[in-house]
Amino acid sequence: MVQVTVLQLDNYGPWTVTPNPRRETDLQALQARLYADLCQQFGLLGGYVFYGRFDNLIAFTDGISKREHGRIQQSIDNLYPVSVSMSIGRGNTPKQAVEIASANLQEQGSSQDADRSEVLVEDEIDELHTTAVGVAHFDVVDVTDKITDEENAYEACLSMESVYSDLMRRMYADYDALSFFVGGDNIISVTPKLSDSALDEVIVKTKQNTNVQLQVGYGLGDTPSEAGMQAKHNLELCREKGTVIERDRAVVERSSAD
Amino acid sequence: MVQVTVLQLDNYGPWTVTPNPRRETDLQALQARLYADLCQQFGLLGGYVFYGRFDNLIAFTDGISKREHGRIQQSIDNLYPVSVSMSIGRGNTPKQAVEIASANLQEQGSSQDADRSEVLVEDEIDELHTTAVGVAHFDVVDVTDKITDEENAYEACLSMESVYSDLMRRMYADYDALSFFVGGDNIISVTPKLSDSALDEVIVKTKQNTNVQLQVGYGLGDTPSEAGMQAKHNLELCREKGTVIERDRAVVERSSAD
Amino acid sequence: MVQVTVLQLDNYGPWTVTPNPRRETDLQALQARLYADLCQQFGLLGGYVFYGRFDNLIAFTDGISKREHGRIQQSIDNLYPVSVSMSIGRGNTPKQAVEIASANLQEQGSSQDADRSEVLVEDEIDELHTTAVGVAHFDVVDVTDKITDEENAYEACLSMESVYSDLMRRMYADYDALSFFVGGDNIISVTPKLSDSALDEVIVKTKQNTNVQLQVGYGLGDTPSEAGMQAKHNLELCREKGTVIERDRAVVERSSAD
Amino acid sequence: MVQVTVLQLDNYGPWTVTPNPRRETDLQALQARLYADLCQQFGLLGGYVFYGRFDNLIAFTDGISKREHGRIQQSIDNLYPVSVSMSIGRGNTPKQAVEIASANLQEQGSSQDADRSEVLVEDEIDELHTTAVGVAHFDVVDVTDKITDEENAYEACLSMESVYSDLMRRMYADYDALSFFVGGDNIISVTPKLSDSALDEVIVKTKQNTNVQLQVGYGLGDTPSEAGMQAKHNLELCREKGTVIERDRAVVERSSAD
Repeated sequence: MVQVTVLQLDNYGPWTVTPNPRRETDLQALQARLYADLCQQFGLLGGYVFYGRFDNLIAFTDGISKREHGRIQQSIDNLYPVSVSMSIGRGNTPKQAVEIASANLQEQGSSQDADRSEVLVEDEIDELHTTAVGVAHFDVVDVTDKITDEENAYEACLSMESVYSDLMRRMYADYDALSFFVGGDNIISVTPKLSDSALDEVIVKTKQNTNVQLQVGYGLGDTPSEAGMQAKHNLELCREKGTVIERDRAVVERSSAD
Repeated sequence: MVQVTVLQLDNYGPWTVTPNPRRETDLQALQARLYADLCQQFGLLGGYVFYGRFDNLIAFTDGISKREHGRIQQSIDNLYPVSVSMSIGRGNTPKQAVEIASANLQEQGSSQDADRSEVLVEDEIDELHTTAVGVAHFDVVDVTDKITDEENAYEACLSMESVYSDLMRRMYADYDALSFFVGGDNIISVTPKLSDSALDEVIVKTKQNTNVQLQVGYGLGDTPSEAGMQAKHNLELCREKGTVIERDRAVVERSSAD
Repeated sequence: MVQVTVLQLDNYGPWTVTPNPRRETDLQALQARLYADLCQQFGLLGGYVFYGRFDNLIAFTDGISKREHGRIQQSIDNLYPVSVSMSIGRGNTPKQAVEIASANLQEQGSSQDADRSEVLVEDEIDELHTTAVGVAHFDVVDVTDKITDEENAYEACLSMESVYSDLMRRMYADYDALSFFVGGDNIISVTPKLSDSALDEVIVKTKQNTNVQLQVGYGLGDTPSEAGMQAKHNLELCREKGTVIERDRAVVERSSAD
Repeated sequence: MVQVTVLQLDNYGPWTVTPNPRRETDLQALQARLYADLCQQFGLLGGYVFYGRFDNLIAFTDGISKREHGRIQQSIDNLYPVSVSMSIGRGNTPKQAVEIASANLQEQGSSQDADRSEVLVEDEIDELHTTAVGVAHFDVVDVTDKITDEENAYEACLSMESVYSDLMRRMYADYDALSFFVGGDNIISVTPKLSDSALDEVIVKTKQNTNVQLQVGYGLGDTPSEAGMQAKHNLELCREKGTVIERDRAVVERSSAD
């Protein structure tokens, strides 16, 4: 089972141009800070958040209650000129969970209804498999030599974009996994449990499609943050050992405070 | 002429895993806040910043001095556990400027040299055309009905990604323009002066390639922020009039404080 | 019982002048953001934080575990150029608890030991009365007319300072309570259970000493945030009814998410 | 001449309790972030800001234009749920300037007028002496041994409070200077040009009144930030040389980016 929360700023588009278009750098700062706040709050409770389209974000929130969501929602309301609606969905795969969460939110009204504000809904179905959640943390082998120190800063963006564009689509279509670019050369996928051959296939096809060699650390855990930390440690093992797939075996240090 | 600043976090990749991998939500919060701070500071001085790969950012900084850059660099150093290098380049087109800024920064050492820290370099060439900078602000016609209220939250990300992926590449190859996704359904291109037919061609081809109908407000100005505000007002005109291209004519209100 | 956490930035003074004195506005921004982050994180878990001296802060953390403290400590380490030590103490009164927490931290080494970093200690004693924690929320009757719209902005600071200076000392000496200025005309005291006559005496003496008339909402709860929200509702009752003391009776609305 | 800007959140008190009292930790976070933003923006332009009562702040803004103030005001409006009014005053002393700025703001209406919002006024008088602005940066000799490592965390707050309370009042009454506690054991006064004997008298009387030994670095400059950086360097000289007053002579390093 995986629990996904879809977050949507309420009636945000119209706000950005009322009464006149607002300065772009302020809007960028607003969106970035709001994302940082969600990261810090959901992160404190063991969750993960990805910026998605910035005004529509996707969080992985296993173990975080509706009441805790409400507290975060209220904090946004107190600190920002905009408010946020949240819909909590559960499914056997990340894809299923985001479908349910999205549909439940859309039932509450349009994202641009002026009177649909601070919705907080939770999917009721809870008869689900209790398999662990998986996180695959990908990055580019030798990115510094191959891209950062080699290409101009914009072409480096285009290069990474071609990789994550390709990876996002295949992980979703083939494995019901949701993948997100998280900066630098890092892409994180939240997945159902994946086999070695699946991970291998993903990396081989990315190489075929984009000519970029990825490596991946894979972790499983009860929460996305547990699985994600395991994945990061495994990715470190790839770097140390020169392998392209490491999974499950890493001993996660610093665990007391994680 | 356009002035581009390439910003690069110093030796950031190694820091994120030293002594152990750091919690992803904290890294996301760090990157987002650092971006917000750059937006606010460059924005106050009339510039624009785009997050790029978050650890490598691209700013448009016409009229912002090396000394002012140094002040912002110092502020990052005082407020964050990481530092940033900056390279200021100028060119007749955004592409030229980012190429020069990138090459000058790469000459100073690798992004992962432990002893290359807080570089601040400025391109010396200043015999350039003094044409205005252009900003094209694109968004999707009827995005709420077509995408946000219709698709699940993740597929909406994929839809937008296919649009900006296509647009970024063509604007760069055909017009030396740098384009960035800025959240929601918004894409901003910093461009040389573009003709009506160029803007028309861009929109028509995006429709052909992705089946998504864009509209665009276009502005020209002495600084990216002037041009960008003009572009936003023109995009509002598109919404009001039901047109897909508006340019140059909008009277920019609220200008006293911009 | 009350649980107090003393937070201390590690070796902060020397850092502010190494290698040269850092710009004051950056230091102010750093301290303020760090405080905001602590507020948001302890607040999410039901706690309260007061800025104290900004580099030494005092939190009320009933019900927040050592592990959760560790997670917040780690987040500060990941997001800031400075780190923080924490000492959790418990006592029958706020004064007792802060004494124990302070002593335990001081035993770990000086605040300026370069090698005393990110200490996290917890007082072991837990055989304590389990009385509710009390919060008294004071403000000035008619502050807008009497001070804000009347005095110059600096003299208004001095006026408020004379009030909180007087109140802090008496609440500490007479009731073992810790009081903090929290902005505007607001002072919050965390107290043992106080009688009506105690609250009355406090207000009367403040009027005698400073010629300023206070009103106070008082609340009791299992956590400081519960007691504090009750106190705020009672303070609203004072405003509505024109009384100067209201306590315990207010129905706290919006409670689902608090 | 000194230029002071008084900043006042518009109708803030009522907002904090509408429709119900807002969670204290969120209000604290809001106030702290807003202060941090003002520090960073005024700081980038060479100014200084002090938190005052958090909802009423005092900035020193020599050389910062009304237009630049307007840009900062707009940014607050875009990023926060509250807005701010600003009044720019000039005087021969800090006291004069804050009186003028305060009176001009009060003329625009009450701080709690629901329809007095985002005022931006500027004092017209500019026939003033053009003497340099002075900054005195005080701290406590041996604060770590005497206070931080010795007293409990709350009594350390009370100790510092007694020092700055005493200092604030005398500096204002005797020298028209505005003094502010800025965290730790630091107090900053913005002053007219002070003689050696004045500084000496201040320190001697504080010792008499509070039994605390201060040291002070004093600087003069065209802007508060220049004077303040000079003062900080002089305070470092006190520490190195074991003196209690140093002034004017320090060579300010790192000046290129300041």
